[in-house]
Amino acid sequence: MILTVTLNAAIDTTYRTDRFAPSDTNRVDLVSRQAGGKGVNVARLLHAWGQPVIATGLAGGAAGRWIAADLADRGVDVRFAAVAGESRTTTVVVDASGEATTVSERGPVVSPEEWAAFRALHRDLVGQAALVVLSGSLPRGVPATAYAQLVADARQEGVGAIVDADGPALRAALEQRPYVVKPNADELRRVTGIDDPLAAASVIGTSYGVNVVASLGARGLLLWTADAVVQASGSPLTGNPTGAGDAVVAALAAGTVRGDTLADCLRDAVALSAAAVLQDTAGTVDMDDVRRLRPGVTLTHLAAAGRAS
Amino acid sequence: MILTVTLNAAIDTTYRTDRFAPSDTNRVDLVSRQAGGKGVNVARLLHAWGQPVIATGLAGGAAGRWIAADLADRGVDVRFAAVAGESRTTTVVVDASGEATTVSERGPVVSPEEWAAFRALHRDLVGQAALVVLSGSLPRGVPATAYAQLVADARQEGVGAIVDADGPALRAALEQRPYVVKPNADELRRVTGIDDPLAAASVIGTSYGVNVVASLGARGLLLWTADAVVQASGSPLTGNPTGAGDAVVAALAAGTVRGDTLADCLRDAVALSAAAVLQDTAGTVDMDDVRRLRPGVTLTHLAAAGRAS
Repeated sequence: MILTVTLNAAIDTTYRTDRFAPSDTNRVDLVSRQAGGKGVNVARLLHAWGQPVIATGLAGGAAGRWIAADLADRGVDVRFAAVAGESRTTTVVVDASGEATTVSERGPVVSPEEWAAFRALHRDLVGQAALVVLSGSLPRGVPATAYAQLVADARQEGVGAIVDADGPALRAALEQRPYVVKPNADELRRVTGIDDPLAAASVIGTSYGVNVVASLGARGLLLWTADAVVQASGSPLTGNPTGAGDAVVAALAAGTVRGDTLADCLRDAVALSAAAVLQDTAGTVDMDDVRRLRPGVTLTHLAAAGRAS
Repeated sequence: MILTVTLNAAIDTTYRTDRFAPSDTNRVDLVSRQAGGKGVNVARLLHAWGQPVIATGLAGGAAGRWIAADLADRGVDVRFAAVAGESRTTTVVVDASGEATTVSERGPVVSPEEWAAFRALHRDLVGQAALVVLSGSLPRGVPATAYAQLVADARQEGVGAIVDADGPALRAALEQRPYVVKPNADELRRVTGIDDPLAAASVIGTSYGVNVVASLGARGLLLWTADAVVQASGSPLTGNPTGAGDAVVAALAAGTVRGDTLADCLRDAVALSAAAVLQDTAGTVDMDDVRRLRPGVTLTHLAAAGRAS
């Protein structure tokens, strides 16, 4: 079982309209309303591929109940810890040209007691897991060391962690040596101060002794491990980039629990990410798209780099 | 008891942000999330003023359950008929300059069977009512004669109706002679083709034999009855005009069941409407504002006009 953690779960609402008019009334058509947050998207993708998964995290209020019910309705095993605050709603309006306007609540403020209760729940669940995925932004009130604490708790149980985070949360998590981190180009730059993704990934990998899979948008993925540096890319596609990174994480998680190396996971990760871009909403793919896109993925071994393995 | 009818009930969400950025991600603060739709706003105002009220209408799905629960939590007696479709959500983002950007779902498509079931529920409830308020737009699937049918059903029970509607729904309702209609300037123009509000109100009043209270924004209210034509206005206020018309309707309804003439209701209607403008969200007023604003309302008798009474 893969455990996904979503500390700031959301109701994600996506609308379509011909033209978006600020300072006016926009009549819109509902495209989808679903449970969201990066970890939730990963859980939904893993479940859709038949991978046993438990979605945990923090959720509160009527929105929190809606999120848990929506995931359960879709067949995902949900074990959220309740918080007193109301979980956030995000609203995305996509116009005919594909431009997306997002309105995003900040979500609940989590108390120290609620965080302690979640950490206890996580300790219990991670003991049953083959891998834990820690994805997305932290709600207010949760310490910047939240993912670091969860990575440490997972290691205590002999369970590896994949971390998809930003800024101080990512930096703190790195100190606890997760199995792999998945920053994008901006996140790499913010953590290292280095513009070049390969140099930045290499600095993170060697400094902290972790594996790095960087998602570089249309340029595909860059894997840095102690044994290999590989660039993986597919045909450039236009579509909805939201959720593409979650598809990468899901592919890495699914491959890892199958016993694949990260290099083995790259072809799936690029194909799944590209298939996610073709969908209107995050956390869904059409498996026919994945099969069609997979053979077009190019892997380029840049170096047998890094430190000695 | 006053019965309010809301055929396209909504979850109304209002956000605040410093600057609204289209085609970008806007982090917003939640101002309020509450049950909405014009009839629901009227019901909440009447309840806040201690007037016995039942809120009925159509609501569906998880959003419909949320709407009913929200009203019940606020102490309003709710008797919605369930529909299979999902009730709509409206999202309003107000920036620092007061500009409002609205994203509005269209709401459910109502089947003929659902409409028939609601009409039976309405017949039952209106028999217990002193007055019925029919407010707001019609959902898809409901006939344009919906309010006309409900006005006729109310009259069958000896119960008067206040109609706040637009276009074909208003035109059809007029044929059934409700006690009063409350168009705004645009609605008056659309129904009569006449620009001047007084001339338009007079045409509606004499043609259909109904009373007219027209809401003219900052210019206040215009009452046309067979016995009197009165202009009522207060000090111009800046604020949120959403819900000002609902406050007018609530004041007319509350006064009417107390036995007041419509002319007697005008001072309250202007003061309540102005107090509503001072609130961030529709369907709420501060009674201190009402008391402060009431003495400033000016009534101008334009003529003892209309037809012979």
